[in-house]
Amino acid sequence: MTMTMLINGHEASSLPVGDRGLHYADGLFETIALRHGQPLLWQRHLQRLSTDCQRLGMPVPNHLLLREELDRIAGNEARAVAKIIVTRGIADSDYRPSPQSPVTRIVQRLPWPMYPPDVRRGVAVCWCKTRLAHQGQLAGIKQLNRVEQVLARAEWLDEYAEGLMRDSDGWVIEGTKTNLFVVCADGTLVTPDLSQSGVAGVMRAQILDSMASLGLNCRVQPVSVGLIDSAQELFLTNSLIGLWPIKQLEARPYVVGQISQKIQAALQAAGCVA
Amino acid sequence: MTMTMLINGHEASSLPVGDRGLHYADGLFETIALRHGQPLLWQRHLQRLSTDCQRLGMPVPNHLLLREELDRIAGNEARAVAKIIVTRGIADSDYRPSPQSPVTRIVQRLPWPMYPPDVRRGVAVCWCKTRLAHQGQLAGIKQLNRVEQVLARAEWLDEYAEGLMRDSDGWVIEGTKTNLFVVCADGTLVTPDLSQSGVAGVMRAQILDSMASLGLNCRVQPVSVGLIDSAQELFLTNSLIGLWPIKQLEARPYVVGQISQKIQAALQAAGCVA
Repeated sequence: MTMTMLINGHEASSLPVGDRGLHYADGLFETIALRHGQPLLWQRHLQRLSTDCQRLGMPVPNHLLLREELDRIAGNEARAVAKIIVTRGIADSDYRPSPQSPVTRIVQRLPWPMYPPDVRRGVAVCWCKTRLAHQGQLAGIKQLNRVEQVLARAEWLDEYAEGLMRDSDGWVIEGTKTNLFVVCADGTLVTPDLSQSGVAGVMRAQILDSMASLGLNCRVQPVSVGLIDSAQELFLTNSLIGLWPIKQLEARPYVVGQISQKIQAALQAAGCVA
Repeated sequence: MTMTMLINGHEASSLPVGDRGLHYADGLFETIALRHGQPLLWQRHLQRLSTDCQRLGMPVPNHLLLREELDRIAGNEARAVAKIIVTRGIADSDYRPSPQSPVTRIVQRLPWPMYPPDVRRGVAVCWCKTRLAHQGQLAGIKQLNRVEQVLARAEWLDEYAEGLMRDSDGWVIEGTKTNLFVVCADGTLVTPDLSQSGVAGVMRAQILDSMASLGLNCRVQPVSVGLIDSAQELFLTNSLIGLWPIKQLEARPYVVGQISQKIQAALQAAGCVA
């Protein structure tokens, strides 16, 4: 039995109850695909974690230390998941963060999720009723607070692979655990602006950065339900799934088109997908 | 050394890392004043916890069991704090809550906070820059996610006892850990409407329910910065502090007036304050 979890570098499976991650959701996480023990998109995950820590005023964990800890738990299964949680350490009795107090690092290996078969050839999704709040100070950050996503995920059982979430003004933002891309009628791509809500996914960033080399254009802008209605193709992304085309949004079918397939193949070829 | 923490009824000081409280902030808490081991406003705390569980679709913990656990950790110091955390149990790898999975109950005694001297005769407060997001589905709930409060509390050191928070539209909602009451020029009271953000405090509820017997009127309504500017008195409340009059809001002094003192005395006389 290999080790699967380290807390601050020590083998452990439980956390001191006083941790600010539990008391205040005062922390961040990264979910990373492991292929034969190798983390995919590692530099991007590190980069986002560091930026998010800075935005919350948290010390940034040492990158080499995190990698060393990840390697210790990674194992060598064909596919697995590494989840890294970084919290602002032990809670004072007050919300006030102590700049001196060291962060807590939880580095953990989890089994690869059991996705339904054939998801790479297209999934059915629904609209969620739960709305995402506007909070510009936290938008984009992969923060521990996932309550809106939990409430949204409770809205359906297994009939859909994912649910699309809108913000309080009705703009379409993301799935509960995925980012969204829209292929417009003119062949350009759009992905929702995340300046007021949502999580800026690492796979989303990878795709945005590879657009030019694929001869594609993508704009980051507010996405209306109308744009979804008129879309030629729709697809979802995250670090584990890579890219799932949407073949149905509730009653409405969508074509799994060439642009989704082209990006999916490019991610695969670039070794970004487990 | 008496026991100070129970997790699901067992003495413990650490929590399985897989708990949804840590992963998703998927849970609630209550902070309860203990006076010689007796919880104050116990029925109100239980009531709010139960209502909040129902709003999140979580099973409500058994009331007698919770009280029994609280009694086991309460000790008999003149003053202490009981913190009860209820989470949606062990995380699946998915946000989806499992209706079968039992909640986690953490019942813990903490030391009474070290408040500055003379706070009951008035405190100085500031405005926070961090805004509270609108999220009607969660507004009022004492949920584990306190990130906005952490960011707000990081805005000042010890020069103020509390900071006042506004929502994204500029309405005044509450302090980082307190509710706010405004005594208007005509002697009526107002406390902010919490239908879009904020925590509906137990002491706030106690005060609202005792208004009539004190011969006072209180309206729950949106509170503008202008109303704060024109206020005769201002005060803060929560389960631990009882009532703190505000004697200064940044550069602006306020009178610690008769109505604040009358309510403060009534809470004391009714045994609501430790």
